[in-house]
Amino acid sequence: MKALAIDFGGTHATCGLVEDRALLSCETVDTDRARSLASVLPTIAETFHKLAQRQSLSMQDFAGIAVGFAGLVDSRTGRITATNGKYEDATAIDLDAWSRKTLGIPLRIENDARMALLGEFFAGAASGFTEVVMMTLGTGIGGVAMIEGKLLRGKHAQAGCLGGHLPVLFTGRICTCGAIGCAEAEASGWSLPLVVKDWPGVEHSALSKHTEVGFKELFEESARGDSVAVAIRDRCLNIWAADAVGLVHAFDPEIIVIGGGVMKSADVIIPYVEQYVQKYAWTPWGKVQVRAAALGNNAALLGAVPLLSEN
Amino acid sequence: MKALAIDFGGTHATCGLVEDRALLSCETVDTDRARSLASVLPTIAETFHKLAQRQSLSMQDFAGIAVGFAGLVDSRTGRITATNGKYEDATAIDLDAWSRKTLGIPLRIENDARMALLGEFFAGAASGFTEVVMMTLGTGIGGVAMIEGKLLRGKHAQAGCLGGHLPVLFTGRICTCGAIGCAEAEASGWSLPLVVKDWPGVEHSALSKHTEVGFKELFEESARGDSVAVAIRDRCLNIWAADAVGLVHAFDPEIIVIGGGVMKSADVIIPYVEQYVQKYAWTPWGKVQVRAAALGNNAALLGAVPLLSEN
Repeated sequence: MKALAIDFGGTHATCGLVEDRALLSCETVDTDRARSLASVLPTIAETFHKLAQRQSLSMQDFAGIAVGFAGLVDSRTGRITATNGKYEDATAIDLDAWSRKTLGIPLRIENDARMALLGEFFAGAASGFTEVVMMTLGTGIGGVAMIEGKLLRGKHAQAGCLGGHLPVLFTGRICTCGAIGCAEAEASGWSLPLVVKDWPGVEHSALSKHTEVGFKELFEESARGDSVAVAIRDRCLNIWAADAVGLVHAFDPEIIVIGGGVMKSADVIIPYVEQYVQKYAWTPWGKVQVRAAALGNNAALLGAVPLLSEN
Repeated sequence: MKALAIDFGGTHATCGLVEDRALLSCETVDTDRARSLASVLPTIAETFHKLAQRQSLSMQDFAGIAVGFAGLVDSRTGRITATNGKYEDATAIDLDAWSRKTLGIPLRIENDARMALLGEFFAGAASGFTEVVMMTLGTGIGGVAMIEGKLLRGKHAQAGCLGGHLPVLFTGRICTCGAIGCAEAEASGWSLPLVVKDWPGVEHSALSKHTEVGFKELFEESARGDSVAVAIRDRCLNIWAADAVGLVHAFDPEIIVIGGGVMKSADVIIPYVEQYVQKYAWTPWGKVQVRAAALGNNAALLGAVPLLSEN
């Protein structure tokens, strides 16, 4: 099956042509200054026409278009239900109608983290498994679940896709989702600078040399032995691992796939989380495996075919 | 439908005769000193024969027997998969074979918290809802989920039934399940005395008059204004509420039903948890209701008919 795919993040959207487990071509559109989803759609359509033309394909060669969107999505109604800040017009847009009118093919939309899990399930690190949790460690923390080969969704499509929003510290920080002490509020790209800023002794740490501390700087300064960096890194590892245990207890997976930008440090993160989960999660049936995602930034795009094939 | 039902706890087992939404009669058997599950079964059979005789019923009048067991249970294979301490022979016993041989009727077994949810769904506080989480606050903390009218189970039957074992404090205490900082490890009947013992200033508190502090003493001394009791009570309320938010984010319920022994203080607990969940959980579709369980200790017994009716 050939399909069009979009991975819609906060600052950019990647448009791809996929055929089964292969990404034929893709192009990333900058959406950082876009004030509305509607204003981005003409560029998206143009990009797809251009990509198809280069491969001598027409829109009718594609079974449909699959959209991964960074927000709450109900794939059954085809609607974005909440956007958490960006693209506030998104909940009012009927994307399937837009696609049929503009591209002449049907559209399905899903939460981007769920799309990435579908990609890793279909063509990546979770291939061969039916019980899967995927965590995405980046600006936010994604956590989605597949049970018995199907994405868990629930009535309002919110089940099994807010795994970064389990509370790991009930006395913790307010999260962008509105809750308190979510894993994301304590150890994600956006919350890390807040944690660093408040850390006792940070002013004497190598971290203070950086104008903004991201996970790259944190892992680098930890590797050089800076004690504050090590302490904050270890706190992050424990939070991700505790969140993973919570996800095991909630969703009963056999494998946890971890992706996202922070996985440039996979050599530290994967063994730590695996050891922790195998030691602390209650799984009398056996041991949960923890693996790095295999598809990198293409995971959500490669979720297109399984999403369009779902009934 | 008439059914036999057992609610198997750590220290006692309640045997009941049920007909649809009504409990016809019941009797509780003390199992505190029982070293094995096998040693209790003859008493259970005897109790059912006696209860049936009193109602002039024979075993053939019952569609089957439904067992709620305080441990991990795979209802599809009919096996107890883990017992967490008590009845270590349980995982080796084929209870359906025992029932067919001894009582002449089929048996189904399920986790006791799942049975209680089925009871509240069929005949209690969750009646009319299909998206339900039930929390049981007692010696431990139960947390089970129903999605689109079905109990969530997963491949190893562990999905959606360990809701008391989401981490609310990633730096917290070791739980009986083996994990760290579970809600149960921080605010349950068994962990409360450990929290009280370590509380700064507890020696000057009214709590120190009690040889053992349970939730009864904690809520009573809080109501009298003891500041340590109030602080510990509020910490428990926040942990239960944070756990509830985690369960909302995991399972997308429309209602949370709370039962268990601690609910003698429902007048404090229900409004607190409801307000917290409605303020902090991310539910753009609407507001999650929080209600006290309606069936008390009979909830699991009244789960018998829906369990036996499942296909």
